[in-house]
Amino acid sequence: MSSANQPRNVVALSGGIGGAKLALGLYRVLPRGGLTVIANTGDDFTHLGLHISPDVDTALYTLAGLANPVLGWGRRDETWTFMATLERLGGDTWFRLGDGDLALHVERTRRLAAGETLSRVIAGVAERLEIAARIVPMSDDPVRTRVRTAEGELDFQEYFVRHQCRPVVTGMGYAGAQNARPAPAIAAALADPALEAVVLCPSNPYLSIAPILAVPGIREMLAATAAPVIAVSPLIGGKAVKGPTAKIMTELGIPVSPAAVADYYGNLIDGFILDQRDAALASGLKPKVKLADTLMNTLEDRERLARECLAFASELR
Amino acid sequence: MSSANQPRNVVALSGGIGGAKLALGLYRVLPRGGLTVIANTGDDFTHLGLHISPDVDTALYTLAGLANPVLGWGRRDETWTFMATLERLGGDTWFRLGDGDLALHVERTRRLAAGETLSRVIAGVAERLEIAARIVPMSDDPVRTRVRTAEGELDFQEYFVRHQCRPVVTGMGYAGAQNARPAPAIAAALADPALEAVVLCPSNPYLSIAPILAVPGIREMLAATAAPVIAVSPLIGGKAVKGPTAKIMTELGIPVSPAAVADYYGNLIDGFILDQRDAALASGLKPKVKLADTLMNTLEDRERLARECLAFASELR
Repeated sequence: MSSANQPRNVVALSGGIGGAKLALGLYRVLPRGGLTVIANTGDDFTHLGLHISPDVDTALYTLAGLANPVLGWGRRDETWTFMATLERLGGDTWFRLGDGDLALHVERTRRLAAGETLSRVIAGVAERLEIAARIVPMSDDPVRTRVRTAEGELDFQEYFVRHQCRPVVTGMGYAGAQNARPAPAIAAALADPALEAVVLCPSNPYLSIAPILAVPGIREMLAATAAPVIAVSPLIGGKAVKGPTAKIMTELGIPVSPAAVADYYGNLIDGFILDQRDAALASGLKPKVKLADTLMNTLEDRERLARECLAFASELR
Repeated sequence: MSSANQPRNVVALSGGIGGAKLALGLYRVLPRGGLTVIANTGDDFTHLGLHISPDVDTALYTLAGLANPVLGWGRRDETWTFMATLERLGGDTWFRLGDGDLALHVERTRRLAAGETLSRVIAGVAERLEIAARIVPMSDDPVRTRVRTAEGELDFQEYFVRHQCRPVVTGMGYAGAQNARPAPAIAAALADPALEAVVLCPSNPYLSIAPILAVPGIREMLAATAAPVIAVSPLIGGKAVKGPTAKIMTELGIPVSPAAVADYYGNLIDGFILDQRDAALASGLKPKVKLADTLMNTLEDRERLARECLAFASELR
């Protein structure tokens, strides 16, 4: 066990809101600077000419304490004058952008056009928001999650927001992934001798974690890291807390079970945190299992689950 | 005199707020569809990656009844969350963009990038805002007013907003003007047999009207039009109602006098509306002169001055 004076570094792989909840828990229980979040950018898209990075921004807003607790996305204390005006002008309004949120998109787009990498832009924003953690996009190169559905192939945001996950999913692709390089900070974070754990947050394995793993090199770096890699089940009692994970698993013909998620991650993970409500399923899982209450309603829940992850990693070392 | 059933078409050349006041007066006294505003685009610039057309937008907001009466620019009932957030992110905040105003800039930038002309974009916005007048940019090609000052050459908005007109002006240039073509609607408007008058609004002659006249062909079309061309003095009692007209004239060594403005327009104009407070100067002016109260504080003032313009044009025909 590390003492209080030693660095306690953790890498979390995260998608949107569910993953960000656990990332916030880790952020709060680790020493300042101990957390690195590798965020999915497969959901990124260009909308109204602006580069939008939904999962990166959810991480930024969540760790900065700016996340909107009612909507589950965007910023708290948000105003909507832009959107109302855009609607009056006949613009595209299916993707809701708050006035404050827009500042981040405009500033990111401007800096990217000026030649900065996404990593650099996000690090700059995190610094301005006084976030004492590294938030790293999985890649500075474009990767775009494409959802193959019974109604044709859709961009992720079209599937997720415009069509509200209604189309039946037949498969997923991560366009651009094969030519993408991991963001520069990822190798250093995963090779860090002080790394205690890598946590695959309870995000959608297929839509949020898979794009990260599709970037060549990241899977290999995870396999090579000395720290234990643990995944937290995104399913409780056969259901996802939020989002289309269960629906997609059903449509893909995968049993809606934590065992299927653990199998999907395969030998990438050393341990699996199973919700205690699913204790009966533990014997069917291949990796080492720890039972925990994985439901994160309160801030205390997030911190408690984060501590369980760290304790589990400590057991696995 | 035209009867109430005949079309009564008027073209107004306008810069920002001063010109838009008279344009609004004309809009209100003419039959629906009778007004064409040719707006200066020399003030246009790209800021935060967005194409901003300040004078076009002032015309749009003014005729749509959306102009901010307190600020004198931007929209009424505006919110400022974007700007406050951008400041927190360390972005550029010297040019203030309201949340609603931003919708127009984002939408315009998107449509221009998609290949639409500025004329088409503005016509579409005017239609959405239910403006029963044509608002036409002077050109769909970029023209950028550059202000030569004792502190070096500045982009117009840098001079006007960032430096608040403080640098001493030594000259002006209209970059791109020589290769710019008049927007397509201009030729038709000026050749219209039903055209009653062309009005050079009381905008800054050097910064707002000159860029329009610098577009090759516009000066010739104004000379060829059958309708009388009249200018409204931007000076009252040796001062501009608003803006740097008098300061610039002084710095350029031009007498701060309506006569100098009339001389500047030269034989382009058939008549000149002089403020009644300057009646003593009438004998020094070369074009035909009409005295009027040119101060436009109220909506009634704008309509009254518009009627004076139309009456003067009728006398000159």
